[in-house]
Amino acid sequence: MPSRLSHNSYGKHRVRVSKIRRPRQGAPNTERHEFVEAAVDVELEGDFDAAFTNGDNRSVVATDTCKNTVYALAKDDPLETIESFGLTVARHFIGRYEHVSRCRVRLTEHVWERLADSPHAFVARDSVEPTAEVVLTRGAEPVVTSGVEKLMIAKTTESGFVDFHRDDFRTLPDTEDRILATEMTAEWRLASADADFATVRKTVVDTMLARFVDHYSRSVQETLHLMAAAALDAAPAVAEITLTMPNKHHLLAKLVPEGTANDNEVFVVTDEPFGYISATLARE
Amino acid sequence: MPSRLSHNSYGKHRVRVSKIRRPRQGAPNTERHEFVEAAVDVELEGDFDAAFTNGDNRSVVATDTCKNTVYALAKDDPLETIESFGLTVARHFIGRYEHVSRCRVRLTEHVWERLADSPHAFVARDSVEPTAEVVLTRGAEPVVTSGVEKLMIAKTTESGFVDFHRDDFRTLPDTEDRILATEMTAEWRLASADADFATVRKTVVDTMLARFVDHYSRSVQETLHLMAAAALDAAPAVAEITLTMPNKHHLLAKLVPEGTANDNEVFVVTDEPFGYISATLARE
Amino acid sequence: MPSRLSHNSYGKHRVRVSKIRRPRQGAPNTERHEFVEAAVDVELEGDFDAAFTNGDNRSVVATDTCKNTVYALAKDDPLETIESFGLTVARHFIGRYEHVSRCRVRLTEHVWERLADSPHAFVARDSVEPTAEVVLTRGAEPVVTSGVEKLMIAKTTESGFVDFHRDDFRTLPDTEDRILATEMTAEWRLASADADFATVRKTVVDTMLARFVDHYSRSVQETLHLMAAAALDAAPAVAEITLTMPNKHHLLAKLVPEGTANDNEVFVVTDEPFGYISATLARE
Amino acid sequence: MPSRLSHNSYGKHRVRVSKIRRPRQGAPNTERHEFVEAAVDVELEGDFDAAFTNGDNRSVVATDTCKNTVYALAKDDPLETIESFGLTVARHFIGRYEHVSRCRVRLTEHVWERLADSPHAFVARDSVEPTAEVVLTRGAEPVVTSGVEKLMIAKTTESGFVDFHRDDFRTLPDTEDRILATEMTAEWRLASADADFATVRKTVVDTMLARFVDHYSRSVQETLHLMAAAALDAAPAVAEITLTMPNKHHLLAKLVPEGTANDNEVFVVTDEPFGYISATLARE
Repeated sequence: MPSRLSHNSYGKHRVRVSKIRRPRQGAPNTERHEFVEAAVDVELEGDFDAAFTNGDNRSVVATDTCKNTVYALAKDDPLETIESFGLTVARHFIGRYEHVSRCRVRLTEHVWERLADSPHAFVARDSVEPTAEVVLTRGAEPVVTSGVEKLMIAKTTESGFVDFHRDDFRTLPDTEDRILATEMTAEWRLASADADFATVRKTVVDTMLARFVDHYSRSVQETLHLMAAAALDAAPAVAEITLTMPNKHHLLAKLVPEGTANDNEVFVVTDEPFGYISATLARE
Repeated sequence: MPSRLSHNSYGKHRVRVSKIRRPRQGAPNTERHEFVEAAVDVELEGDFDAAFTNGDNRSVVATDTCKNTVYALAKDDPLETIESFGLTVARHFIGRYEHVSRCRVRLTEHVWERLADSPHAFVARDSVEPTAEVVLTRGAEPVVTSGVEKLMIAKTTESGFVDFHRDDFRTLPDTEDRILATEMTAEWRLASADADFATVRKTVVDTMLARFVDHYSRSVQETLHLMAAAALDAAPAVAEITLTMPNKHHLLAKLVPEGTANDNEVFVVTDEPFGYISATLARE
Repeated sequence: MPSRLSHNSYGKHRVRVSKIRRPRQGAPNTERHEFVEAAVDVELEGDFDAAFTNGDNRSVVATDTCKNTVYALAKDDPLETIESFGLTVARHFIGRYEHVSRCRVRLTEHVWERLADSPHAFVARDSVEPTAEVVLTRGAEPVVTSGVEKLMIAKTTESGFVDFHRDDFRTLPDTEDRILATEMTAEWRLASADADFATVRKTVVDTMLARFVDHYSRSVQETLHLMAAAALDAAPAVAEITLTMPNKHHLLAKLVPEGTANDNEVFVVTDEPFGYISATLARE
Repeated sequence: MPSRLSHNSYGKHRVRVSKIRRPRQGAPNTERHEFVEAAVDVELEGDFDAAFTNGDNRSVVATDTCKNTVYALAKDDPLETIESFGLTVARHFIGRYEHVSRCRVRLTEHVWERLADSPHAFVARDSVEPTAEVVLTRGAEPVVTSGVEKLMIAKTTESGFVDFHRDDFRTLPDTEDRILATEMTAEWRLASADADFATVRKTVVDTMLARFVDHYSRSVQETLHLMAAAALDAAPAVAEITLTMPNKHHLLAKLVPEGTANDNEVFVVTDEPFGYISATLARE
């Protein structure tokens, strides 16, 4: 039974790069630095079948060369945003190698904030990770998707869950007052690669957080939808947004001695199993 | 700018279940047990839009109920394989809830082996994780995909990489003797849900490992293709197979004092960055 | 050859608890909450030998009971700080069980910050983890140690490393301008259990960060010492402080095409191997 | 308030090295290789105060040099065991640098097994990690401790826990039939650095596993003690052994529909919280 190679891709993952930007130069100890760090995945598709089927490597840009390329491009690119750097990387591979038909770049930023207004000291204490993906197919416009991972938010009241499906496999009671906690992942696809990525990012995240706060939540589903819809409203540059809100459960603790009341005060925190809720909203 | 809910799904992830099977019963301390453990993700799609858009939970089978269901089904299902249990779970949700249009079940097994031929003592020392995914869409046949994760294999010779694309971004020299090491992930889609999953699994894995050993590797790409093609040949029940072989680099160490030779003896082991090579083979 | 049980301890680890505090009460949706979360390890020593040597469990407070106890105590304790809650837990076990001779409690806080000045919405985006350990030995004063983990800081200049030991195993050149980055762990033992833990914590961390910024670093060792000494100076309640500063290397990238200059602009970020530097400073 | 540097140490952690040994040499594709891999931590103590207190680096053997040293020594050392290589490393630092007073080397092996009797193909599928620590203080004999981590074992019956301390904080019932599962860590200190480390390791582990199987367990404590005592009996070269047996709970699942019996068949597997039991046995 003969087989065929129906898909292949390859590249280098976890190319971790940092860059010192020097927008205002001065004497060594007063020069004002900016410090950016990202992990970059590069994947290539194209005319690479012979490497798989025939051990013919002539068209293969080595994954080591992909790595070299990321560092080389980081020298001249200002790394203003991970999205813009992703575009630089994707355009390089499509521009330089005629046999590459598609380049996919995924980036995760490790955010450094200025420390104590020092010109060159930084602290990285934000657990939220900005992400971006750029997919550039030869002859097409680049598709840029921005995102965040590990955004952990909670409401300690103004959240309930009632009137859900009832059958003999259900044991969870209705509740009109519970903790809603989630470690949110968001991804928003930009309508165009000319977007102002940083501004859009700030608008999307700030809008979602404000929406998270402002209502009584009847379910994770409802809150997710309100947040996603608000982000689409606030950021016209966004074509589509996907939110994933795993429920990080804080369960009412059963207190000892037996009969001790727990009036929504003390909770058992668990990582697994966890409720998983995900939805995509697009413009009409 | 109005928006629409273009996709949604929800469920419970990381439902971790273990089961004692008692195929040969006897006195308490001689009864011969089998011990199986898996982590199960359940995701549902269907008529759930009102929960997102209107806070109407009436159709929502709570994720807590999904969890209850996994344990309830584990009582009567023999858990022969994670694939067969995944089918049981998916069929339950499609059969019981008319408004569920698709159920996706992902499972990872934590393998317990018998210890010292004891009837009831076990050891879990295999780092390889069997996986399975069952997708059941109402009105269609179930699609079952089996797999393995974390299968770490290496060749200390009989592997090279030469004649790959040369330009001024390339610094890696040609080599005809290097270490090839990878932490392989494989996924094979079965042509039918009636397959003998355990036998197919053994055939696919054993065949791939035998193929890994038997040739001089001109690239990860070539070796991946040989292994995937051999698996398709050996297992007619498999319709398609995807292998991902991240290159876990063992780089020749530069030895001190300066000038000390390193004749392929001592290597620096690194986790990142890593070469990423993936391909899918289907039957013609 | 007979053996003896020379040491034993047991308890429950990773008891994860959250608590809603209601310092200012009001209507359900305006009541101002505070939200605290911690993971608690409890370990007991005492007259437990018979459980090990003779299967006699009568003195064993089950680890499940230890867990129940943490939740029970979290109801009445205000959880002002992890240190004060650790004292509550340790004193409970010593006070209630005469055969317990020592109780060790370790706590890690998961910090929730108020979101958008909401009375009941929170965000947990600080990757730094406050830690505490309370050791209470029967008849002695409690020993309280506070700390932080995962405090990642960097200087992009004003850091060098020169004139270190030179021999033929050394290949690292002298440098007067490098990135110094570390993921710091700090632990400070309080002179007394009556300390104002929150104020001391703020003083120690703020002082260390200010000291990190203010000097040219001749080595991680020197900077670590300056930071620890400054913390001892600023916080008289601290008897001893230990800092561990693993060097998270940002190595100057070798750029392609060959010959491209890299004037301290682009760096390769690596997690391993990493330099490990640790020291303890005590009062004279 | 003046302070003093009461302790310091530094070194390189996570130096990951692999080595091809060629005990039987032949033609390239028939030469029989052995393949070993380890991660090595090196820590030095000695006359290093001036680096901390005065920015004087002259005595500092750079952590980069420590790394170079591990690779250099891996060339000539046969890497028979991680213990013997740890001794080589420790002796090198004490022998070469007069101002180093103590060298501590910690090693974790990543075990490669021969695959399909190939002379040069290997698989690393054992999740158990052999460990070793060598501490060499100038003028003293080296102290060698061997160990294993992540040895996951379970008994599905022949384990109970009854008659433990009863009070109103206890909710766990007595049980005479439960699952006992643990991810064991063991460390055994050798009486002498001349021990046959590999043989001792095999004896200790095999003996403990055999003992784990052969009895009705009245508690984790009792089983831990029986296993440790058996290891001391079987391996005269061992002076002291410490076992840590975190209880990886498999809790009887409460089945739906309400009232469904669960006759020790289906269990909820949890990682946290977990019971923690540890003890050290020494020779009389």
